[in-house]
Amino acid sequence: MIVERKLILYIAMSLDGYIAKPNDDIGFLSLVEKENEDYGYADFLKTIDTVIVGRKSFEKVLSMGFAYPHSDKEVYIITRTPKPSIGSFQFYTKDLSELVLGLKKQEGKDIYCDGGAEIVNLLLKNNLIDELYISIIPILLGEGISLFNNNLPEMQLDLISSKTYDKGLVQLHYAKK
Amino acid sequence: MIVERKLILYIAMSLDGYIAKPNDDIGFLSLVEKENEDYGYADFLKTIDTVIVGRKSFEKVLSMGFAYPHSDKEVYIITRTPKPSIGSFQFYTKDLSELVLGLKKQEGKDIYCDGGAEIVNLLLKNNLIDELYISIIPILLGEGISLFNNNLPEMQLDLISSKTYDKGLVQLHYAKK
Repeated sequence: MIVERKLILYIAMSLDGYIAKPNDDIGFLSLVEKENEDYGYADFLKTIDTVIVGRKSFEKVLSMGFAYPHSDKEVYIITRTPKPSIGSFQFYTKDLSELVLGLKKQEGKDIYCDGGAEIVNLLLKNNLIDELYISIIPILLGEGISLFNNNLPEMQLDLISSKTYDKGLVQLHYAKK
Repeated sequence: MIVERKLILYIAMSLDGYIAKPNDDIGFLSLVEKENEDYGYADFLKTIDTVIVGRKSFEKVLSMGFAYPHSDKEVYIITRTPKPSIGSFQFYTKDLSELVLGLKKQEGKDIYCDGGAEIVNLLLKNNLIDELYISIIPILLGEGISLFNNNLPEMQLDLISSKTYDKGLVQLHYAKK
């Protein structure tokens, strides 16, 4: 029996549900920066071989002067503007659900949704996310880009684990019920 | 030295930050109902002697056919419509900040904010909440009444504790930094 690959969201938000302040400011993440503490990210990355990321989030990384990571994975950048692939990075302009359902039928490790909010909400709307790792940063940002939009379908969850770290980050891991 | 009384929010929300579905439907709370498990509520109530609650939340309880609890505490129902007190229940129509600042200067146990969202957001806007107990229910409700509004001031928090319960509820306890 082949176990279907899971689509997993791994993301950080403030207690009031923002993944960034206005203007994509993610400075609040520095509150939980700590040497030699990656909050399980490297271990998580070992379980996935495919990444789905929105075009804006992808470009945000580049705009900060970094190369987009995960060049060792199959990366789909969801965009409306066709572009030729760069190495393992493919610009995907067609239907997102179709992509995810197709990937889930293939063999492989799990699939990582690297944001941003627009992609997450499209995936939730279509009931395609199987697991969520939500790291709650100890701050109320007060305004910004919400992780979860209004008017999504209800989704019951099983708590798989909750881990508390000494910078005050709590990482919640849920699976779709 | 007198330690100032703290104003404490104790509330449950879905992972996507809703305290109720549209029409004040709080049925999702039944997901975590369990015999002999009150998620620390009785112990919390021992630390407070005063309750602040919005008029709508107060009436919601009555509309469900219950008496409003906490008749052994000093209860302030925040409303725009003056009404005579009933026992220890006072209907308060003046400035909320003034009430809270006045209460904090008096001696006594801590002060419990029992919601709803409108009151919570007024208090956050005026930087009056000292601690928060947020119980995260394992569900995405998708729509409803958000606990935290837009356009609040940023507020850094210290995580005091995080408790995980076997129905999947995670209770986060924060203090203002």
